[in-house]
Amino acid sequence: MHFLAQQSFLLENLNIVERVVPVRSPLQIIKGILVEAKDNTLSFTANNLEIAVKAECRDVEILEEGVVVLPGKLVDIVRQLPSEKLEIKTDEEGLRMEIFSGQTKFFLYGMNADEFPVISAEEEWKNWGKLVFASVDLKNIIKKVIFAASQDESKPLFRGVLIEVDSEENITCMASDTYRLAHNNILTGKKHNVQPLRMLIPSKSLFEIMRILDDSREKVELYYLDHELIIKYRQFIFSGRLLEDKYPNFTDAFPAESSTKIVVNTGLLEKTLGRAALFAQGPNQMISLSIQDKTMQIRSGSEIGRMSEDLSLLKKEGSDLEEILLNCRYFSDPLRVVDEEYVEIEFNGPFGPCIFYCHRKQDDLQEIYRYLVLPIKIDKKEN
Amino acid sequence: MHFLAQQSFLLENLNIVERVVPVRSPLQIIKGILVEAKDNTLSFTANNLEIAVKAECRDVEILEEGVVVLPGKLVDIVRQLPSEKLEIKTDEEGLRMEIFSGQTKFFLYGMNADEFPVISAEEEWKNWGKLVFASVDLKNIIKKVIFAASQDESKPLFRGVLIEVDSEENITCMASDTYRLAHNNILTGKKHNVQPLRMLIPSKSLFEIMRILDDSREKVELYYLDHELIIKYRQFIFSGRLLEDKYPNFTDAFPAESSTKIVVNTGLLEKTLGRAALFAQGPNQMISLSIQDKTMQIRSGSEIGRMSEDLSLLKKEGSDLEEILLNCRYFSDPLRVVDEEYVEIEFNGPFGPCIFYCHRKQDDLQEIYRYLVLPIKIDKKEN
Repeated sequence: MHFLAQQSFLLENLNIVERVVPVRSPLQIIKGILVEAKDNTLSFTANNLEIAVKAECRDVEILEEGVVVLPGKLVDIVRQLPSEKLEIKTDEEGLRMEIFSGQTKFFLYGMNADEFPVISAEEEWKNWGKLVFASVDLKNIIKKVIFAASQDESKPLFRGVLIEVDSEENITCMASDTYRLAHNNILTGKKHNVQPLRMLIPSKSLFEIMRILDDSREKVELYYLDHELIIKYRQFIFSGRLLEDKYPNFTDAFPAESSTKIVVNTGLLEKTLGRAALFAQGPNQMISLSIQDKTMQIRSGSEIGRMSEDLSLLKKEGSDLEEILLNCRYFSDPLRVVDEEYVEIEFNGPFGPCIFYCHRKQDDLQEIYRYLVLPIKIDKKEN
Repeated sequence: MHFLAQQSFLLENLNIVERVVPVRSPLQIIKGILVEAKDNTLSFTANNLEIAVKAECRDVEILEEGVVVLPGKLVDIVRQLPSEKLEIKTDEEGLRMEIFSGQTKFFLYGMNADEFPVISAEEEWKNWGKLVFASVDLKNIIKKVIFAASQDESKPLFRGVLIEVDSEENITCMASDTYRLAHNNILTGKKHNVQPLRMLIPSKSLFEIMRILDDSREKVELYYLDHELIIKYRQFIFSGRLLEDKYPNFTDAFPAESSTKIVVNTGLLEKTLGRAALFAQGPNQMISLSIQDKTMQIRSGSEIGRMSEDLSLLKKEGSDLEEILLNCRYFSDPLRVVDEEYVEIEFNGPFGPCIFYCHRKQDDLQEIYRYLVLPIKIDKKEN
């Protein structure tokens, strides 16, 4: 292998790929990065057996083809090279890599690429089920639900995010840790009569996918078959395993009616909850909320002090709400991800679920975002 | 206690003070911040029994005097208040503090201030020994040596930085962890015939002092008596204990002669060492350095690869240097703190000390900075 390349260009690609390299693994080979030079394309692949990411760089002058697995440290080396211009070549056995830049010479001991786990070839997945999104849209759909997925290792199912597409290409994205549920529904307004699909993607994988995506309207291609997902975006190919879909049917979780309905400024509520969080203690991070007329009062207290704040509501329908106890973080999480200036919140008494609701129309698309959080049910005297 | 104040103004002071509040302490009272309102001055004090910092705020409207110890969390609360204008007052017993800002009300449970450890009063230390610096100068003197102080709990003496002033007001600042020694000498050119002094300040305290200081030429007053040090700068008063001065005499450590003397670009050497560090492994972080003609070659190697880089020297006197083994971090640390474009380095063969040397003249001041590092003495076959 022998090629000439720009430092900044390699770095841009290695920075994405190296995130997937596992810090610890009994399998030595996957702690490296697969480097392939062929057909005028230089590619880097990392694979931690759960997720693989490949970056294909075409602006590289390949003088001799080849393939080798290099230590993950490659990215640190490229980052610190003194000159933009790099020359990289392997020795005769093709395993020792020499990196030249300015007055600096690096040697990296490579490994034989034969045992590096491969990503399914493009010819294969080009025939799988396929979805296409604009990058910014896919990011937006995911961002609004991903935080609600469980971090709990003992609940593998709930560590996933469910993506569903119905026959009319309406997309639903859903995540829950069983205490709360985020649900984002995009009505595309198309009538393509496509094949319906459901897939449960580990949220860990989705976080990596989010890093590859950007806020452009460039096309993201999503391919899936059985338990595998491939995402192709710009020069990147992502591959990850899907979770077995035994996701419960949550569609009935959102109540049809509600006893109290308010509209409140998103940013102001977020700031108020930030202050309430200062005294929201314990694993429940409990705060108390009550609504009287067009005012919402938020309170919290711990052994060092208490806070109390009145927030004016833009609108209120239904009855007052005497007192509901909520997990402060669960209640404020959706406010960080919605872009709307105002959010609608529905309550169902002190023990019923509380629902955030945002609605957005853009061109032909219509987005209906709902987030449900269950109140804390404890004997208040305990606190 | 009752006062009106601006949020940003309180925050600026609390941010400095809160750093001293201990995270853990069996003594409840010192986990709080002493708040005093009297004589048109509001002051905040934190004291972790090793270091105390007091901030005095004069732009505050005091409606009622008082004193109370509030939880360290006070700073988080003030940081998140919705409005610039604050009203703060205690209840009748003077222990529960109410904070009003916009629609937000906070209550903080305070503690009786009687048991809070006090800083010696100004009337006391006004009669102690005294030194005066421009803030930027003091910062500069300390910055160049403090990194060389030991972090090792078992070497309390070497966790200190020695400051010496001789009868002609020449200042010396020194720190060592016994593997290396940083020595900064400021010749003030004055002939005041002042009282000579030596004090050994814990580097931990100096880091806090560095945070209070800024790059202005405003006066810093430094008072000392026996084992205590007081620093007064702007609205801040710092108080800390001194270490018992049994600091060894290091003056002879710097050899009078050297076998090799080079001048090299500071920034280029720092970057080269950054790359060498990528392969400098083990507790010694060993790199190898050799000098031939006007070229310095730096090399390092680990089980994943090797680096080698040639650096052109601006000047070289004396003999070539076959090979010296150095701790990469120890060798590069001084390059981060010197401001000069070029640095002079002297070597004394592969086993003799290696010395960095910088010289600066500014107005009447003359600064002579020396940094000594000992080479690694091991049987090279081991590596």
